[in-house]
Amino acid sequence: MTSLTQRLRELGLELPALTPTYGAYVPARRAGNLIYVAGQLPRKAGALMAAGPVPSACSPEQARAAARFCVINGIAAAASAAPSVDSIVGVVRVGAFVASDNGFTDQPKVADGASEMLLEIFGERGRHARAAVGVNVLPAGASLEIEFIFELAEK
Amino acid sequence: MTSLTQRLRELGLELPALTPTYGAYVPARRAGNLIYVAGQLPRKAGALMAAGPVPSACSPEQARAAARFCVINGIAAAASAAPSVDSIVGVVRVGAFVASDNGFTDQPKVADGASEMLLEIFGERGRHARAAVGVNVLPAGASLEIEFIFELAEK
Amino acid sequence: MTSLTQRLRELGLELPALTPTYGAYVPARRAGNLIYVAGQLPRKAGALMAAGPVPSACSPEQARAAARFCVINGIAAAASAAPSVDSIVGVVRVGAFVASDNGFTDQPKVADGASEMLLEIFGERGRHARAAVGVNVLPAGASLEIEFIFELAEK
Repeated sequence: MTSLTQRLRELGLELPALTPTYGAYVPARRAGNLIYVAGQLPRKAGALMAAGPVPSACSPEQARAAARFCVINGIAAAASAAPSVDSIVGVVRVGAFVASDNGFTDQPKVADGASEMLLEIFGERGRHARAAVGVNVLPAGASLEIEFIFELAEK
Repeated sequence: MTSLTQRLRELGLELPALTPTYGAYVPARRAGNLIYVAGQLPRKAGALMAAGPVPSACSPEQARAAARFCVINGIAAAASAAPSVDSIVGVVRVGAFVASDNGFTDQPKVADGASEMLLEIFGERGRHARAAVGVNVLPAGASLEIEFIFELAEK
Repeated sequence: MTSLTQRLRELGLELPALTPTYGAYVPARRAGNLIYVAGQLPRKAGALMAAGPVPSACSPEQARAAARFCVINGIAAAASAAPSVDSIVGVVRVGAFVASDNGFTDQPKVADGASEMLLEIFGERGRHARAAVGVNVLPAGASLEIEFIFELAEK
């Protein structure tokens, strides 16, 4: 089986350095076989890749593309609480919050940017349950925030 | 002890055929003894039973009644990831998102439509923790979206 | 190791009597080693300590201070489903919903009121993953609602 490290390399993905959280919490917390990852904003090297409500300030396509940064930041966060990067083998749940104008109802299309990337990376064990909802506003004015529960390899 | 299949029959409830999800995720995902179910919209045979914000577009009573479809869809989803329908024996958590006008603060009454049905079906083990919140808009313009964590029988 | 009871006493904190929930759910539900706590409003002796959206109706400072009531109510709720108060030893996840005007993007500062208190109480094992988001409206018109997953001591 391909390890996560190998798979990320194959896909040309590199885990970013872990950035500080935005408050008195940690990027990820282990409980038994699961890693709970804090809500991730679509930041790349500190810069927000999607800001403001969809679609008035950020197009659905841009928000969907930015969801991939939530995923890669989320995996980096998970690794900080896992025995090793390669012990992360699956995804249990994704919670996606999309800053939305009142008339925008395509939150699932935005969240698919994250879900498809997780499938690409983890394959069959990347298949996850998901809740995607609209909200009026998110921290730092981000267009989306995504939280994750990852699964560790059974010992 | 009454099995879930029997109990649903006693209550005159039938599990709907599983509908496709709205994106690159699965209806439910097992992790250990728990089944995480994706956010369920109040659909019946494909049609949305409650649309738009409460109360301007959908009355609280209608939203509350529609919550029962989230539950029955949620149980059908859970069954897809469980060893069998009858291995589902309890409910751990319900997360209810209610599309709400800014002045609507009775989200718990809407969510009770789901919680009461879960108690009816699962009895004592149907007692669950719950978060119910308002949001400005939901996928497909639904009035509510509910996610679940179900519990499997100990082996 | 200091027990939770001792630590609360040291900090001059007293667990409130458990108030009824706002619907057909329970204050907390155990699943294995975890306690899922229902969304807690910032109530003290029944009265809401922070109402309306931040910042137009409730200042960020007031909402942040009120977050501490969500924590103490959440611990009391957790105790109701735990073998004993002192069996609660850590915090896995915090989910914070902040009723927000469209322009308010400092939800993490409000949620820090809860996170910092959890660190103060539980120390190292109080370090948790967190999702903090804005929403347009919350039950009873509260300014915030916070849910928790606590961790029990391994047997």
